[in-house]
Order: sequence, then structure tokens, then C-alpha cells
Amino acid sequence: MQILKTIEELQSIRKTITSNVGFVPTMGALHDGHISLIKKARAENEIVIVSIFVNPTQFLPGEDLDAYPRKDEADKKICELCKVDYLFMPEISTMYSKEEVSIKAPNKSYILEGLTRPGHFDGVLQVVLKLFGITQPTNAYFGKKDAQQLSLITQMTKDLFLPINIIACEIVRENDGLALSSRNVYLNSNQRQEALLISKSLYSAGALIAKGELDTNIVKNKILEIMKSLDVEYVAIVDREFNEINKIELKNTIILVVARFGNTRLLDNIWL
Amino acid sequence: MQILKTIEELQSIRKTITSNVGFVPTMGALHDGHISLIKKARAENEIVIVSIFVNPTQFLPGEDLDAYPRKDEADKKICELCKVDYLFMPEISTMYSKEEVSIKAPNKSYILEGLTRPGHFDGVLQVVLKLFGITQPTNAYFGKKDAQQLSLITQMTKDLFLPINIIACEIVRENDGLALSSRNVYLNSNQRQEALLISKSLYSAGALIAKGELDTNIVKNKILEIMKSLDVEYVAIVDREFNEINKIELKNTIILVVARFGNTRLLDNIWL
Repeated sequence: MQILKTIEELQSIRKTITSNVGFVPTMGALHDGHISLIKKARAENEIVIVSIFVNPTQFLPGEDLDAYPRKDEADKKICELCKVDYLFMPEISTMYSKEEVSIKAPNKSYILEGLTRPGHFDGVLQVVLKLFGITQPTNAYFGKKDAQQLSLITQMTKDLFLPINIIACEIVRENDGLALSSRNVYLNSNQRQEALLISKSLYSAGALIAKGELDTNIVKNKILEIMKSLDVEYVAIVDREFNEINKIELKNTIILVVARFGNTRLLDNIWL
Repeated sequence: MQILKTIEELQSIRKTITSNVGFVPTMGALHDGHISLIKKARAENEIVIVSIFVNPTQFLPGEDLDAYPRKDEADKKICELCKVDYLFMPEISTMYSKEEVSIKAPNKSYILEGLTRPGHFDGVLQVVLKLFGITQPTNAYFGKKDAQQLSLITQMTKDLFLPINIIACEIVRENDGLALSSRNVYLNSNQRQEALLISKSLYSAGALIAKGELDTNIVKNKILEIMKSLDVEYVAIVDREFNEINKIELKNTIILVVARFGNTRLLDNIWL
């Protein structure tokens, strides 16, 4: 595995690659969720590029940019074990200049995650587009856990007609159901235990729907009832394009939940 | 030459091309200025793609979108004669969807052309990025006449790390000095004659500078004096990144002029 610290290095290597390139963009602190993306990329492409870049433009003032977990040495080891070809770790100062052409996510980026984090998705799309520009991937891998992010990146790729396949990858969970997240390290043992109610509520919703319940209000209430001891930020039921829906359509519905544990926001969702 | 009307056709052909692609995006009504770009692309690339697309998002309400000259049959003939490989003429409805990820040009897009046409360059960058996505050019050709546009497209390409060379091409002029423009057809014979003062003023400025005059105010006044009978919108002296400057730096200065003839705005400039 080659570790590349500069954009120019990766660009000049990329020029020489003619085979398929699988790309996994990350903010590091790699866990089994990331590893599942990397393994999928490894299985499906001749060349695999992973990036680690804690992107400042997607953090709002007061968010955990400085505290965001950084584990460079462990991450390098993981990438090496996963047989990544190129690990790209650029400096912030080289990724951005003073006055930039920027990306504006559509209005629907201001609901759900975007409601509490206005502008967050502009920053996500900006950095993803830059990373796509540098790596020119054939296939790019994103987790379903950040469902709204995945939806917007898919839309950007379509809107700009980029010749890139966006591959949606399943959520990876702890044995007890908690969705993996780099931010789980912020939880104390009490919060860690309470957080199980999130996935539990989603499983129960799934079971209810499997029995034939398609009314989104009833399903939402079931979820809220199970999570009633938590600080729930939102429960939403949307179609794959993130329009809120009243009636569940099988195969085109995502149920999303966010709950807060102190300053830590935990996201989870299921895709029907 | 193959004429391609759909995005999918061009995308699927593009996938099969491994050699260099030269791309000339236009809004049609091709004149010798465009032809010089196409010839340069033809000389420098194995494959040449020209697009004709009158992009609605770069016109402001009340501008000449509907009246913009369209000459499809003549344009096809010109491209054929210039040995273009693919002429791309997409429908508006296929280029845009309802709610889009959009592009925001930097603040300096709101001076000069952007002052009278706020948002114009957002639209220009959006369509150019879409066309780059579809055509994936190695080299893309733009005229220096739209100097601010050229500067912003160059910046976008750098900011997004696109592996595309932006090639700046010289302004082509009538024998009497008038810079070629698709909008010249709007001029009556009187206006056509008066319009010569634009290039004349720029030549005089160039001569003044050649004699050693580097003060931008003196040079500006010279230009304004020659154009005093015209409805001048602006005279500006900027560096290559479009910062206004007080002292002319040889090899890093552009002098820009815009004058109005009825509803028609004519642009011209010289690059030192």
C-alpha cells in the first residue's frame, strides 16, 4: 500500500491507471462499517483508493471538528490489512483555497440532518466532488447509515452526469444492534446501553410493517413509544428521494431516527 | 461527423474512447471565433466534440434567451467542414431536472459582467460542469473574449481538481477590428460603425502601455476619451485572477471594455 499525502501525487498516479478504480472516502477513525465498504471495493475493482480527510467545511461552528476522533496509525494498519492500493491523506490547506467555487445542495438538504446542520451537506458535496475530481473513480462506496448524504451524493452524480457508480452499502451493527459510528466512542456506558433502543425501535417498526401496517403515523408512534426515554431529535419516514410520505411503499421507504446523548447525535435507519 | 441529440448516446460513446478528447462548448450561431477554437481542438486531439446548447440558466429574466440567434443547419455544416467527430445538441429538458445540486461562483463573479448579470456565472459554471461530466474532455477550449468566464471556468477546474486542461484561445476580429460575437447580428449599420471605437480604444491603450505608461487611471481615461460618444458600461483593468489593479503588470493584466448599443452589450478586451 502506498500512502499519498499530496493531491499531485495521487493525480499523477491516477493518470497511469486504466483499469477500474474503487474509491472509499472516509473521515478516518475506521470501524467495521468502513471496513465493509473497503472490502466491497476490493472485491469489485482492480485498484482501491481510500481517502482519510476530516473535512472542515461540513462541520458547523460549535460542532466536533476539533474533537472528531483521529486514529491515523490504526487506520493505516486497517487499510494495509484490507489490501488497499492507495491511502490518500491530504492536508486541509491543499484541499481548499481562499475564495472557492462552491456547491449548493438542493432545498431538501435543509430537512432532517440539514435542519439542525444547515449547510452541512453543501460541505459534504463540495469535498466529495473534489475527491471525485482527484480520484476519478469508476465506483464509489458509501454507507446507508448516512442515508441523506448518500441520497444527495447520488443526486449530485446524476445532476452533473459524472461517469461514477455510487454504491450503497449496508449498515454494519454491533452484535446487540447498535449501528457502528465513529461517534460511538463519545458514549458513556449508560448511554451506550440506552442507545440500543434506537435499533430496537427500528426493528419493531420493521416487524409492524411486515405484518401489513403501512400507515406512517402508526409506525412513527410505535418508534417514539419505544424510544420515549430518549432525547429524540426526529423520526422520519421518506421515500428514496427523501420526500416525506404518508403511506409506506415497500422497497421505496427509508425510516430514519436521530437521538441525542449529551452532545452526541446518533443516527440510524432501515431501508425497506 | 455524428450528431448526438441525447446525453446517453454521448456517454456511451465516450466510454469507448481512450484517446485524447478536445471539447468546444458553444451556444451555436458559430462564427470565425468558434471556428478558431474548433480548429485548435482538431489540431491537438484525436477526438473532437463540439456542443451546441443555448443554456437557459445563464440568462437572466428579461435577457435575450428567446431571441438568441439559432442557426442549427449552418452550424452543422461548419462542424462537418471542421472535421468535428461528434456534435452534441442536447434538449434543455434532459440537461436539467427540477431541484438540482447547483454551483455557486465565488464573490468575484459579481463584479464586471456579474454586476449587471448577477447569477449569470453560476449558470455558466453549472452547464460547463455538466458538459464536462458528459464529455470528460482532456482539453477544453474557450475564447479570451469572455475573459471573466474563462477565468472562472479555469478556477472551477482547479478548485474541483478536474483532470482537464482549459485552453485559452485568442480573440478573432473582423478586418476592421470588431471582436466577433454572435450578438453582432443585432447591430444596425450605424451601431456597427460606432462599435469600432471599442477595439480602437483598446489598441490605443496597448500603444500607450507599450510606451511605458503603467498607471491604470491614465490608461482608463485614454480609453474613455476615445469611447466618449458610446454608452460605456465599464472599463476595467484587472490581473489574470480578476483583481482590480492600480499599476499595470506586463504579462498579468487584462483590460476589459463593455459598451451598449440599444439592448446589445458588446464585450472586448486585450490581454497584456
